[in-house]
Amino acid sequence: MAKDMTLLWGSGSAPCWRGYHQKLLSFEKMEYKSQEVLDINPRGQLPSFKHGNIVVNESYSVCFYLESQFKNQGTKLIPDDTDQQALMYQRMFEGLTFYDKAAAVVYYQYYVPEGERHDSAVKRNKEALETELKLWEGYLQKLGAGSYLAGPSFTLADVVVFPTVGILFGFGLSSQRYPKLGEYYALVKERPSIKASWPPHWVEDLEGDGDTLKDV
Amino acid sequence: MAKDMTLLWGSGSAPCWRGYHQKLLSFEKMEYKSQEVLDINPRGQLPSFKHGNIVVNESYSVCFYLESQFKNQGTKLIPDDTDQQALMYQRMFEGLTFYDKAAAVVYYQYYVPEGERHDSAVKRNKEALETELKLWEGYLQKLGAGSYLAGPSFTLADVVVFPTVGILFGFGLSSQRYPKLGEYYALVKERPSIKASWPPHWVEDLEGDGDTLKDV
Repeated sequence: MAKDMTLLWGSGSAPCWRGYHQKLLSFEKMEYKSQEVLDINPRGQLPSFKHGNIVVNESYSVCFYLESQFKNQGTKLIPDDTDQQALMYQRMFEGLTFYDKAAAVVYYQYYVPEGERHDSAVKRNKEALETELKLWEGYLQKLGAGSYLAGPSFTLADVVVFPTVGILFGFGLSSQRYPKLGEYYALVKERPSIKASWPPHWVEDLEGDGDTLKDV
Repeated sequence: MAKDMTLLWGSGSAPCWRGYHQKLLSFEKMEYKSQEVLDINPRGQLPSFKHGNIVVNESYSVCFYLESQFKNQGTKLIPDDTDQQALMYQRMFEGLTFYDKAAAVVYYQYYVPEGERHDSAVKRNKEALETELKLWEGYLQKLGAGSYLAGPSFTLADVVVFPTVGILFGFGLSSQRYPKLGEYYALVKERPSIKASWPPHWVEDLEGDGDTLKDV
């Protein structure tokens, strides 16, 4: 990472995994509410990113900004081909819904205060995630073996959606039940950029939640 | 709109307002679950957009796709200036959070089944929206009078965030309490593209919810 770039991030967060890495802060210690973060992000959220005097905090914004500024360096992440580009944009923003549906299940207890939890909501969220997963299975099925989310090459769609897939398998999603997503996960996690950015606290322990999704 | 483009949309929806307009479908009649929509959008959601054989459904995807395909036509919506472009990306994706926080208040009864509603959640959502609104007041305050969301020109940030602002004022947000947002709303709603795309069912009646936000 260039010297004039600062990225503050947290391990295991999908939005953070979408970015480059530099300074790892602790979620447990609530370092995302520290002055260092607040100085560049009034929301006190990670990731927070600074390039020279330019601050860009939302993970999707960071991707678009970096791709726009450095489009001739490294892997080309926005395809020139019109169909692939359209599919990439489509999958990128469906990826937000995918993440929301995954988060509603995986982080339910974190987001919903104890007195507001309902079995009916848990059931509905689980069913919504299953419907969502079947859509993505279908998308990958249609593209064929060895494909990325928007076609034959790795694009911004993979940059933003893979972390959600990684979290789902980390929380115990079955690759028997979702074989195309399983293949996609196996394909992408071997990429050097993904290996280099793997959430370090996952190497040893996924917060003991490795079977949260075993029934999904 | 060109002949090879099809847009299916619904009146009063922020995601639909972000796009161009063509065929208006009825939310009340659940026409978004009709075969016409499902043929191009397996989610059965509006907006749904088709350009030739290319289908792009998510409202943000449609914006990026159209801007990429037609960047030399009409108003230039992505500034060349690096600072303005970075700010545009930042505000665009903060705009998703803004919309979520607005929707959590305005559409609470729609999204949350009766048996799962809690006064504590309503209160928390209202406070979260107030915090969010103060952030945007501050952003506009800093940019100065007559500014758009990413600087002196109208950009994709305005395309995607203005509908949220429009909905908030439509549901009774006070421009006394949020004067910068009020000025911004007044500025943008006079633009010909906004006037031409104003949700038709709002002209007469905002579903009787014009004072939902009077205490926010």
